[in-house]
Amino acid sequence: MGDLIGEVVQSELYYIKRNEFERVARLSASMPTAISLYADMARLNALYMIGLAGSGHIGSSFSALDIISHLYLSEMDRDGDVFFSSKGHDAPALYAVLIAQGVLEEGLLHKLRRLGGLPGHPDVSIPGLVTNTGSLGMGVSKAKGMIEAARALGVATRLYVMTGDGELQEGQIWESLVSAANRKMGELTVVVDHNKIQSDYSVARTSDLGDLEAKFNAFGWRTERVDGHDHDALARCFALMRQETLRPKVIIADTIKGKGVSFMEGVAIDSDVEMFKFHSGAPSAEQYLRAVEELEQRLAEKLYVFGVEPIRISVSPRPAAPAAVAAQVKLLPAYTEALLALAARNPRLIALDADLVLDMGLIPFRDAYPERFIECGIAEQDMVSQAGGLALKGMLPVVHSFSCFLSTRPNEQIYNNAIEGTQIVYVGGLSGVIPAGPGHSHQSVREISAVGGTPGMVMVEPCCPAEVGPLLEWCVDKHSGPSFLRLASMPYATGARLPNGYRPQMGKGYAVRDGRDGVIIAAGLLGVAEALNAAVLLRDRDRSFAVISLPWLNVIDAAWIAGVAALYPVLVTLDNHYRRGGQGQMVLAAVAEHAVARPRCLSLGLDVPPPSGRTDEVLAVLELDGAGIANRILHFLSA
Amino acid sequence: MGDLIGEVVQSELYYIKRNEFERVARLSASMPTAISLYADMARLNALYMIGLAGSGHIGSSFSALDIISHLYLSEMDRDGDVFFSSKGHDAPALYAVLIAQGVLEEGLLHKLRRLGGLPGHPDVSIPGLVTNTGSLGMGVSKAKGMIEAARALGVATRLYVMTGDGELQEGQIWESLVSAANRKMGELTVVVDHNKIQSDYSVARTSDLGDLEAKFNAFGWRTERVDGHDHDALARCFALMRQETLRPKVIIADTIKGKGVSFMEGVAIDSDVEMFKFHSGAPSAEQYLRAVEELEQRLAEKLYVFGVEPIRISVSPRPAAPAAVAAQVKLLPAYTEALLALAARNPRLIALDADLVLDMGLIPFRDAYPERFIECGIAEQDMVSQAGGLALKGMLPVVHSFSCFLSTRPNEQIYNNAIEGTQIVYVGGLSGVIPAGPGHSHQSVREISAVGGTPGMVMVEPCCPAEVGPLLEWCVDKHSGPSFLRLASMPYATGARLPNGYRPQMGKGYAVRDGRDGVIIAAGLLGVAEALNAAVLLRDRDRSFAVISLPWLNVIDAAWIAGVAALYPVLVTLDNHYRRGGQGQMVLAAVAEHAVARPRCLSLGLDVPPPSGRTDEVLAVLELDGAGIANRILHFLSA
Repeated sequence: MGDLIGEVVQSELYYIKRNEFERVARLSASMPTAISLYADMARLNALYMIGLAGSGHIGSSFSALDIISHLYLSEMDRDGDVFFSSKGHDAPALYAVLIAQGVLEEGLLHKLRRLGGLPGHPDVSIPGLVTNTGSLGMGVSKAKGMIEAARALGVATRLYVMTGDGELQEGQIWESLVSAANRKMGELTVVVDHNKIQSDYSVARTSDLGDLEAKFNAFGWRTERVDGHDHDALARCFALMRQETLRPKVIIADTIKGKGVSFMEGVAIDSDVEMFKFHSGAPSAEQYLRAVEELEQRLAEKLYVFGVEPIRISVSPRPAAPAAVAAQVKLLPAYTEALLALAARNPRLIALDADLVLDMGLIPFRDAYPERFIECGIAEQDMVSQAGGLALKGMLPVVHSFSCFLSTRPNEQIYNNAIEGTQIVYVGGLSGVIPAGPGHSHQSVREISAVGGTPGMVMVEPCCPAEVGPLLEWCVDKHSGPSFLRLASMPYATGARLPNGYRPQMGKGYAVRDGRDGVIIAAGLLGVAEALNAAVLLRDRDRSFAVISLPWLNVIDAAWIAGVAALYPVLVTLDNHYRRGGQGQMVLAAVAEHAVARPRCLSLGLDVPPPSGRTDEVLAVLELDGAGIANRILHFLSA
Repeated sequence: MGDLIGEVVQSELYYIKRNEFERVARLSASMPTAISLYADMARLNALYMIGLAGSGHIGSSFSALDIISHLYLSEMDRDGDVFFSSKGHDAPALYAVLIAQGVLEEGLLHKLRRLGGLPGHPDVSIPGLVTNTGSLGMGVSKAKGMIEAARALGVATRLYVMTGDGELQEGQIWESLVSAANRKMGELTVVVDHNKIQSDYSVARTSDLGDLEAKFNAFGWRTERVDGHDHDALARCFALMRQETLRPKVIIADTIKGKGVSFMEGVAIDSDVEMFKFHSGAPSAEQYLRAVEELEQRLAEKLYVFGVEPIRISVSPRPAAPAAVAAQVKLLPAYTEALLALAARNPRLIALDADLVLDMGLIPFRDAYPERFIECGIAEQDMVSQAGGLALKGMLPVVHSFSCFLSTRPNEQIYNNAIEGTQIVYVGGLSGVIPAGPGHSHQSVREISAVGGTPGMVMVEPCCPAEVGPLLEWCVDKHSGPSFLRLASMPYATGARLPNGYRPQMGKGYAVRDGRDGVIIAAGLLGVAEALNAAVLLRDRDRSFAVISLPWLNVIDAAWIAGVAALYPVLVTLDNHYRRGGQGQMVLAAVAEHAVARPRCLSLGLDVPPPSGRTDEVLAVLELDGAGIANRILHFLSA
């Protein structure tokens, strides 16, 4: 019976409707008490959204919620007042507050990370969100631009910007402090959500920023420190800061990651033996229930003194698990294994990471070779230039981050290294349109363009786990210049198989399916898998399409492409990337330049920023799933 | 008679041979006295190199020379000791010292900024230079990488890195300080050449960094301040710093820009009424002579006490002025005029600059619209994100820097702005392979690739002054998203003329010369001019080639290119840019995808980093002048 109840309950999710927030706001409670209640209610809703979406940042949402609630309920009392979060991954917290405030319509509570819903990171298309964040370190600069605009247009404004503490490792933060002080931007208040834990470990362990107050003071900012969960203290601190009108201000708010649910609170990881478990990703069903119970109970206790009804909790069925899909494969474990094998025989190999040791599969490497592992923190420019120095002095650096960051933030640094002619391997994870939940700050669909034109740079992308090792080996052993290994992080089902005795040959692809009416040239786990799916669908329509996996993203062998062009009357390129500057454009240019035969050509890929959403719905709307690709090809053939 | 002597003397340049440096080193002078002498001799040689080259950074070379001399003659006494300059534009100073030290062969004294000689900014291909600099802010990170390598390999090392003070505006500097302190890099000594003047104005006026010591102290660095021209003080300061082995160290050296030649010294510009005149560029013949006289006289005075012969000054003829070329045109004045006109009718237009107000032609705008001009200092990421904030709040930002920096340092920030869908105009100067003197940190030949794949981004490049206004107008009035105006800064002779009634049409080019055997498609001042020159040469070989100017760098109209492909049997693309990711690749891909007719195609452009040198010799070696282009086409036709 208990088990049965457990099962029933685990199939439910719980949230609080807007009218309950309104009821709390009408209580004759002191403002700090009301805000405290409100923040816990918003926690329950943020947890609901993340539970329903299956991913999202609980820890950072919870640490920020008292501050965000205070800002919306008490501090921001003028029309021109603006708040945004520079870190951006606390979006569920902000959404919960904006829904409670009536800025966002209530139905969006059920649409986190869904197509047409609320993106994983802030986007200006959503009411109440003033700037796109998720790429760290830009917030103060953006706020300064908004203040300059307000000054130019003669509009009164106050800007409130929340940053993470790990985010302060980004150089742009410090770059942006200087003119805020010189231009006397008293309109600006930055709140550091100082929860002491970043993506992997504590800030102190990752890249210790030391005395934050001393640093901000040295940059000419007015600095205060406050307990970010003490509503009386927050009220006093913001009131004090209002009086400072000639200097930009920073409030260093001591917070607790995961605050509000005892077992999620990241206070006991000072030893850094374990990683904090609630940075991103959804809790288990059991954890979810325990968290809801705890929040519900605290809400009841807080309301008890007012003699009113407890908060009404609404129930929503937990969505059914997605239909069973074919067995999915992962590239990251194969990467970890390949890196370890290479490190074992190459003592010059040294790995650098930017606070993604878990997400980039680096923990086994770090544990095996601690003396050849440099954790750089969220400081991609510094990391890449360090790699440059290492390479100049005889080491072989392998540099890790998500592709969206690695190809863009240190773009000039990668070029600077390249023109020194050294060998450096860049490894970018989370490449391509999926997972689409985090939104376009994290969907890396521009890296071929962004770094592919760098002289000497060779970019490769494996289409299955078995190809990861050979390609990494090629970068390490066969190539003397810079290379970029583009890795999909999302598990995916694929029918791709390597040819017998496969060895990478620069610029040349290989058939993973035969055909005679045309060929689809694609790269990577998603691209080749969906090209194969499309070919199966085309077969059903009596069109026989071959599929070629071309792991070389920015190098096309002239003779090879001429041979391919001679074989097929139709040539389709498929990019898990913007079409402009993507692999397809390189293939098509090579066809024009090198092929005598001239197949009809079609290029498929992205033209606009991809939406946030669930994998299936995003691929469908982009026509990058097998059905979409097949339809586009059929349409092309009939034109 | 006096006039005649003047003319004779003005046709000479003066330098000091290595054996004279050796003689000074053997004097029984105290070390500080010997170094002081040596530094002044090196000043004379740095001035010689810049005079001969016709460009180079005098001010920064002179402010740094006492420190560099001290480092090489006294401080760096172990094999593993390494020095490099992070700012890099003091390269003539370093070259002068390395030649005097015998690290570089003496003949290179006569080859600054010449092909096969010494590049305008440091390059690892030159003996004694350990890293490529010229892109600011990377030096500390690179040094850290070198230290990590030394630690990993068990090699003793000491790293000495010179930075500018304006350079400290780059966020990467502050980003890089953190782990140097945490990793206890006592091997590292940074010397800030604190000459108080950056490219345009004083550091204080441009973007005041305030109390440097407090900032470095707050980042956990050991900090000392010293008079950077007082050799006794320098000796004491470095000796003191040697004792600090657990913290990275910074010496803030108060220096004078242009130190050593009275009228070049930048001490009297506190009022900032005038710009410092000796940041870059060669002095006039008259200034040169006065400077030599002053240095010579001081050397004589210093040597007098030793009772030895005065320094022997060698004489070299000033090279003849280059042969008269056809009238050259400049794009920048046309840009200034167009910007002013647009600002007059669009009150939302606001200009941002990164310490290049002179080089980007912005002084008239700033003077006319001081309230719509934001000087950001050398802080491109901050500048671009500020532009994002401005655009979100209703302004139309026009963002300026050199293309090499603007397309790469704030690459992720440009993308972040783009996915907000706002309108921002980016204007990049110093685009393309020429001027080739400054070397590849400044030769921007990758920007189409680096930012061209950004969604919504339209990149344009005018081929003559008359096209600047219409293209800027298009960016401001016709396009609602981001755009990038790529401007050549080098005056150049061109036969290009706009068609009557020219109006920019996105993705479509226009013929600037007719032909029937083939067509060359090019963009920009250099590209179209040299394509025309090639067409003339081809005409002499009975080949009739049309030339099309295509000002759209990353957008090709499908119907238009199909029409072009139908007209000509041979289609040649020409990039003042790397071929990979350049305009030519976009054109060729469009031919493959959209054209029914299939001309034979050839793409011309860069494949490797361009060398530093004089315009004529660099274009010749790259085969990007008319003769080279014509030869390549003839070779292709005969294949």
